[in-house]
Amino acid sequence: MSSSLGNKLKVSIFGESHGKAIGVVLDGLPPGIEIDMDFIKEEMARRRPGKSILSTSRNEEDNFEILSGYFQGKTTGTPLCAIIFNQDCRSQDYNQLKNLPRPGHADYTGFIKYNNFNDYRGGGHFSGRLTAPLVFAGAVAKHVLKHRNITIASHIKSIQDVCDESFDSIDIDEATVSRLRKSDFPVLDESAGQKMKEQILAAKKEKDSVGGIIETIITNLQPGLGFPIFDGVESRLAHALFSIPAVKGVEFGAGFNITKLRGSQANDEFILEGNKIVTSTNHNGGILGGITTGMPLVFRVAIKPTPSIGISQKTVDLQKKQDTTITVKGRHDPCIVPRAIPAVEAASAVVVLDLLLEREGEYGLSKEFKNGDR
Amino acid sequence: MSSSLGNKLKVSIFGESHGKAIGVVLDGLPPGIEIDMDFIKEEMARRRPGKSILSTSRNEEDNFEILSGYFQGKTTGTPLCAIIFNQDCRSQDYNQLKNLPRPGHADYTGFIKYNNFNDYRGGGHFSGRLTAPLVFAGAVAKHVLKHRNITIASHIKSIQDVCDESFDSIDIDEATVSRLRKSDFPVLDESAGQKMKEQILAAKKEKDSVGGIIETIITNLQPGLGFPIFDGVESRLAHALFSIPAVKGVEFGAGFNITKLRGSQANDEFILEGNKIVTSTNHNGGILGGITTGMPLVFRVAIKPTPSIGISQKTVDLQKKQDTTITVKGRHDPCIVPRAIPAVEAASAVVVLDLLLEREGEYGLSKEFKNGDR
Amino acid sequence: MSSSLGNKLKVSIFGESHGKAIGVVLDGLPPGIEIDMDFIKEEMARRRPGKSILSTSRNEEDNFEILSGYFQGKTTGTPLCAIIFNQDCRSQDYNQLKNLPRPGHADYTGFIKYNNFNDYRGGGHFSGRLTAPLVFAGAVAKHVLKHRNITIASHIKSIQDVCDESFDSIDIDEATVSRLRKSDFPVLDESAGQKMKEQILAAKKEKDSVGGIIETIITNLQPGLGFPIFDGVESRLAHALFSIPAVKGVEFGAGFNITKLRGSQANDEFILEGNKIVTSTNHNGGILGGITTGMPLVFRVAIKPTPSIGISQKTVDLQKKQDTTITVKGRHDPCIVPRAIPAVEAASAVVVLDLLLEREGEYGLSKEFKNGDR
Amino acid sequence: MSSSLGNKLKVSIFGESHGKAIGVVLDGLPPGIEIDMDFIKEEMARRRPGKSILSTSRNEEDNFEILSGYFQGKTTGTPLCAIIFNQDCRSQDYNQLKNLPRPGHADYTGFIKYNNFNDYRGGGHFSGRLTAPLVFAGAVAKHVLKHRNITIASHIKSIQDVCDESFDSIDIDEATVSRLRKSDFPVLDESAGQKMKEQILAAKKEKDSVGGIIETIITNLQPGLGFPIFDGVESRLAHALFSIPAVKGVEFGAGFNITKLRGSQANDEFILEGNKIVTSTNHNGGILGGITTGMPLVFRVAIKPTPSIGISQKTVDLQKKQDTTITVKGRHDPCIVPRAIPAVEAASAVVVLDLLLEREGEYGLSKEFKNGDR
Repeated sequence: MSSSLGNKLKVSIFGESHGKAIGVVLDGLPPGIEIDMDFIKEEMARRRPGKSILSTSRNEEDNFEILSGYFQGKTTGTPLCAIIFNQDCRSQDYNQLKNLPRPGHADYTGFIKYNNFNDYRGGGHFSGRLTAPLVFAGAVAKHVLKHRNITIASHIKSIQDVCDESFDSIDIDEATVSRLRKSDFPVLDESAGQKMKEQILAAKKEKDSVGGIIETIITNLQPGLGFPIFDGVESRLAHALFSIPAVKGVEFGAGFNITKLRGSQANDEFILEGNKIVTSTNHNGGILGGITTGMPLVFRVAIKPTPSIGISQKTVDLQKKQDTTITVKGRHDPCIVPRAIPAVEAASAVVVLDLLLEREGEYGLSKEFKNGDR
Repeated sequence: MSSSLGNKLKVSIFGESHGKAIGVVLDGLPPGIEIDMDFIKEEMARRRPGKSILSTSRNEEDNFEILSGYFQGKTTGTPLCAIIFNQDCRSQDYNQLKNLPRPGHADYTGFIKYNNFNDYRGGGHFSGRLTAPLVFAGAVAKHVLKHRNITIASHIKSIQDVCDESFDSIDIDEATVSRLRKSDFPVLDESAGQKMKEQILAAKKEKDSVGGIIETIITNLQPGLGFPIFDGVESRLAHALFSIPAVKGVEFGAGFNITKLRGSQANDEFILEGNKIVTSTNHNGGILGGITTGMPLVFRVAIKPTPSIGISQKTVDLQKKQDTTITVKGRHDPCIVPRAIPAVEAASAVVVLDLLLEREGEYGLSKEFKNGDR
Repeated sequence: MSSSLGNKLKVSIFGESHGKAIGVVLDGLPPGIEIDMDFIKEEMARRRPGKSILSTSRNEEDNFEILSGYFQGKTTGTPLCAIIFNQDCRSQDYNQLKNLPRPGHADYTGFIKYNNFNDYRGGGHFSGRLTAPLVFAGAVAKHVLKHRNITIASHIKSIQDVCDESFDSIDIDEATVSRLRKSDFPVLDESAGQKMKEQILAAKKEKDSVGGIIETIITNLQPGLGFPIFDGVESRLAHALFSIPAVKGVEFGAGFNITKLRGSQANDEFILEGNKIVTSTNHNGGILGGITTGMPLVFRVAIKPTPSIGISQKTVDLQKKQDTTITVKGRHDPCIVPRAIPAVEAASAVVVLDLLLEREGEYGLSKEFKNGDR
Repeated sequence: MSSSLGNKLKVSIFGESHGKAIGVVLDGLPPGIEIDMDFIKEEMARRRPGKSILSTSRNEEDNFEILSGYFQGKTTGTPLCAIIFNQDCRSQDYNQLKNLPRPGHADYTGFIKYNNFNDYRGGGHFSGRLTAPLVFAGAVAKHVLKHRNITIASHIKSIQDVCDESFDSIDIDEATVSRLRKSDFPVLDESAGQKMKEQILAAKKEKDSVGGIIETIITNLQPGLGFPIFDGVESRLAHALFSIPAVKGVEFGAGFNITKLRGSQANDEFILEGNKIVTSTNHNGGILGGITTGMPLVFRVAIKPTPSIGISQKTVDLQKKQDTTITVKGRHDPCIVPRAIPAVEAASAVVVLDLLLEREGEYGLSKEFKNGDR
């Protein structure tokens, strides 16, 4: 029980940062989905390292290979496995890690958990690199969700103390969605974005790192997705989002700030919009009682500063049982936030598709079931 | 797939606020655990309504009855079912709800989800009353965790904009734990607590409500609990915590504030303390890579203002499809935060026990396995 | 992980034979199903002890009480919990069992599993009495399946070496279904049934017991239910069927006898029947590759002789660690086969409903979803 | 929900017979297990086609490649993925299958299930070829089980109406285990084996096929594995065994024949053997109440005749909706029984390891946890 997620759509991720390959199995995809490979590649490219001075110089092509579940350009409905071979590994950079756990990383907990048998190179199975197969899975899921016009858009809400504007939680226009998606550094207010980049470069200069907050909106979700009590949409999404390395907080709607409102302010009143029941505000982020209301789903995710920094830090030599220090070598992002966006969206897409399939069963997302010759 | 949680310890909750009974099945408890009924009752009492002017006047004794899995004063290892009969129901208060969904409640989503067949009285299965069986489950779990000296303590971190101090994330003394546990309104700084109560009463006076933040610390957890990627401790805890009605945010360690730190500040350095590896700070809240470090597990939960308020609000008549208004009658808490604390601790206890059992198997928490005559 | 079953419809069973109550939670039922209480009672009565000289004289009314998930005569869609209070317990009959495991029973394995903390009275959680909540669950499931005209019928295929005829695996007429359902001792050939009863009474006279084979047919299943590899219909049904105490074998279609045929005989040829694709024979019992073909699902279940017999048998005193003997007292069935039929059908009904819900989602079995005003 | 199995050890299988690759993910293996590659290859070789005139002439090397979860010659504890590239595919042999479902195969049900988008070539995901990754998984599991001296041995109990002797269900000697393991056609009585081979060749000559029964014994299992009611050892094993293509029946201990015994014969009496509690007979096959007794686990599996035969059979053209006939081309086994043995053992090994890990947790099978420096 560890590296798999989902009920009706099951996502299993495997691999280590410096092993032969990393990959993902998607079990439960609807059959007959024509996958747009260019779209998948675009999504993968959004996460890929080595694109700008803001990120690590490790250059991975991230070329995926689909091994199964895909036939004549369409999903078959059986498990789809995709793998990505690791290429640009400099494992020697990590030799020191064997006995010196990096602060803020999972080296120490991996050592304890696996009794020193874990592949420590580059964080092994705990590496941020494992978000590549997640992004692949998310890209496929997004592609399926498009059949329902479900859109997922995100921006960088803040880097350290520099804040962007917030999404209007009631609506988002197509142009903004498209602009954010295409940007390497998506913000609503470009001037705030400029200041954020300066913060990142300032940290980089000092061999340090910074974190930030990602805000995401999902539109066109039907009401009625999710379950009461233990299997609500917030539970399911938070579960998936906290699986992304560096995430330390998740909040929905007004989130922690809702605690500063009175009930009369926080409650979203119901009104008719034409024949449709909507809420006039959306402080609850599109979820009530664990179930979607039909309003946009809005949430924010806190990403901690990249733990890999070029500054000397205290650690303990696990073999010698001695206090010592470590200066992390290797190529690292001074800020992981922009590259975390596709991972956040991917985790969300996978959860939303799972919820939809639970609601509608196998018949749900297959247009062909209705139009076919059966 | 909805109202059950856990892998090795499975918790299933059933019931509706105004139905015959609510209850819980705990499947996977270690055998031979002597349950201290007074402790369970104490825990239940912490959640119970009707205790003070700060909470609802609905007075439920919450007397539980254990139906199975318990023999000669000890757990048998087979499923333990406990039920609580509903007594003080004034269902007529809820007649209006049938067609008028209360803002901020799950009435509308329940209507959609269950196609108008849900028991709408008092929120039905979505009611905060369903935290009573959760608290029962948590009390049993806490009791088992005591065999490992694992302690869970919480305080009210804030009500609206009034803040208490924060836990020292490195340590907490026995006296504080004990004082917080016994308090109806647990805070670290009593003067802050006084101001919080004033906020609540001010809201109550205006038939309004307020929310707040709960901070929880879990000590003496062994390192190595949890799993990488999709089944990390943060994922598991957040999943359970978001199942509590009114929770809109969950953060671990420094949480959202970690995004304001640099990596050199946020990273928790490893040092030796005697023969034990610890971290000198605990911004990561005792979790790295989804796995416990052995440091205290610290998290905060945002509780929204009670949605039931005596102020008129807009809603839509579901039958007539007309805009209208609703003024929520019935007896409600102006602030649910104090009563949410045992629910937060219960959800945590259940998750922690599950993680321990996954780590150690059935042999894990049974002293008797070692001391018995086998 | 033990006493619960199912993916989309989750069935959890709790209780001990001589505890306060036994019961079941059904999570995932479609909302809006009007439950016919008389039908449920009929099903329960089929399993109930104390009806004839062929079964135990323990007389349990088996009056169930529905605690949740049921409102205004219909399912709500939230977890439905039903309990049955234990009444006619003569626990003193079982005092000797504490240290003397009965051959053929789970006393010894329960002792080992639960380290001597299990409730040994009457077999505790392992007792055949726990099939009462299963039969309740099955009755509800059958009731839902009726909306699709899915019928489950069974007969006693054999008692010891006396055999009944076999079902025609292609078709079964309504009259036979109805006749079998109403019979206390359902057989196709009544003269074989007479001989079977004689075998049972002969065994009873000698304080011994006999077993037999149950054959079941499920009609009107749509093609396409089930999953490849690990989650096929045979896997799912066998999983549930082996959970019934005393079941030692399960076979589908021609079962073990298919090994005596050649491929040219065993293969079921496809033919058109009007516009419908059917098979001319049904040696595969309505399943190919783990998925239903649309032909009747046919299987047989081997039920061992009741292990409780009044003849002295060797056992070991667990406390004294000494060889000794035991003569089982208490009231027991000389043959459990007739009373096992409703349990076999219940397990099947629950699995079939789960498969249907996985195929069709929450929309699947709710007529109202289609006819409602949404 | 389809192609994955297990609780603590999760096995996911992916791939299609004529796709790029087939493979398996093993999630939950204990860390630090040194895998003996020669042993794995031996196991794979037992299943491999193209070895004798008794089997298909499709010649697959079945060279597996481990992509993850394996570091410095040992398991890491993180998901182990192994893939096998498909090589000797003659997909054109299967062109006719697109519209002509082969009797006895999953072509028709795959067509229905996946709405005609399934990869029909060679049976696709339903192909017996998918037992190759299962056998890989089983080989790894067996390897781990060796640390507990747990042995799995099988023989061909029958081919059509030719029967071998039965295992002594109380004991099996090392020499027999070793002899059976090394044989391409394992039987206890070689003269019976000779007759079986003649049956197979006779069927082959007539382009027909035959089936048979496999009997398996697992020794040195500790008592106490498994769970009551829905998660018993029989349920778990049967679930896994029915996932193997062509399996139509599973029975434990005396199985269907136990129905011919009286209770006084069928009950296995408990006796002391030195200080150990054993049973004098083993009609229950080492399981009581779903839990292991410590006696050898014995079961039999019915394998239907290979559905691929060179004789013309009736089928329906799915496109034209017309009755027609099909003669299956391609290279096929006249009898799949010998090659099914490693699959049966693999499914068993995987289930047994899962049960052990559930009983003992992560600490269970890691010698190193006890001997290491922690």
